[in-house]
Amino acid sequence: MEVKAWSRVLCSILFLVAGFRLSEQARPLSVSKPDPDDAAATARWLVSQNSWGVLNTISGDLGGAPFGNVASFSDGLPNEGRGIPYFYLTTLDPTAKNALKDERASFTASEYPIGTCGKKDPMNPSCAKITLTGKLKPVDPKSEEAEYAETALFSKHPEMKDWPKGHNFQLYKLEIKDIFLIDWFGGPKPLTLEQYLHAKMNKFNFIR
Amino acid sequence: MEVKAWSRVLCSILFLVAGFRLSEQARPLSVSKPDPDDAAATARWLVSQNSWGVLNTISGDLGGAPFGNVASFSDGLPNEGRGIPYFYLTTLDPTAKNALKDERASFTASEYPIGTCGKKDPMNPSCAKITLTGKLKPVDPKSEEAEYAETALFSKHPEMKDWPKGHNFQLYKLEIKDIFLIDWFGGPKPLTLEQYLHAKMNKFNFIR
Repeated sequence: MEVKAWSRVLCSILFLVAGFRLSEQARPLSVSKPDPDDAAATARWLVSQNSWGVLNTISGDLGGAPFGNVASFSDGLPNEGRGIPYFYLTTLDPTAKNALKDERASFTASEYPIGTCGKKDPMNPSCAKITLTGKLKPVDPKSEEAEYAETALFSKHPEMKDWPKGHNFQLYKLEIKDIFLIDWFGGPKPLTLEQYLHAKMNKFNFIR
Repeated sequence: MEVKAWSRVLCSILFLVAGFRLSEQARPLSVSKPDPDDAAATARWLVSQNSWGVLNTISGDLGGAPFGNVASFSDGLPNEGRGIPYFYLTTLDPTAKNALKDERASFTASEYPIGTCGKKDPMNPSCAKITLTGKLKPVDPKSEEAEYAETALFSKHPEMKDWPKGHNFQLYKLEIKDIFLIDWFGGPKPLTLEQYLHAKMNKFNFIR
């Protein structure tokens, strides 16, 4: 009996360790992916579930080249995301500096890091990807939107509130003009900003 | 004894399942990360270890906006990567179409999906990120380089060789002009193309 008990304890420990590592590294999804036919819900799910993506601006310093930069973001609290990506940027980094000279920007996120693409290649059309194109603008720090954006960001990225004060991080948002979504075979899904912003989210539950 | 045996079997199954999910989803790293002081090796490690990133071009259709797109890539076989990212693109997708009109491009990858950033935020400077800026160009299909690029891509992305022939996927490369690397506190690391291409890779072993 003692051996059996130890065996059970060992089993539990191993499983707990494996589960912990899994939860820490792979961030298993607590929300089911919407049906790919529902482009608006899929797009909102991609934006809600990801914590980072690549934020692209025009680099004057690099001859007008498109300059992608890894960026943490958030569109809101769980269950309350609005689909607008907010960022916390400093002009010490090229991205914010570029945006203040030329607002044209895009933000790209993939389903791949969410962990639901299985063995599919990141470029397989059924492993969804989204690019939001528009204008990258500072959020008025005295506005209600700034309060919303800060809560959205700091809840998803607790580290941010401790980033160096001297670096003057400020809130930015991507004012979306165009949505490029591929979530299945057959090319990009037609999706208007209106449809995206008013996606029916009751088909699945946001739990983070 | 029978209960104990079953307990062991159950334990093994649970652990195997957990381990399999871990290996599939979190893709644990089989190579140690170079010292952040070694910018060239860190940059090459980031490019070698990642299988996808965001490829950015200028979109004429979207008023000259920078357009990021999720892209699978490869810089070579394990132990043989050369640091140049190769892609397999079709002009059915905006990225290749954009590049044929305007070569200016960048490619961005993060340490985050490699799984070595632990609990650090994706924008924490010690969670490395790289942006290679340059020109996105088709690779001459009859060249030796095309052979190298195809082997590099198809070995890392086995799915590619079965992508629809009718879509006319073609080999592209990013001809690098500038390297933006952040792998520690204190701003971007100075890193020339020469240093990047000739990084001393013997400080760590490439095993994939």
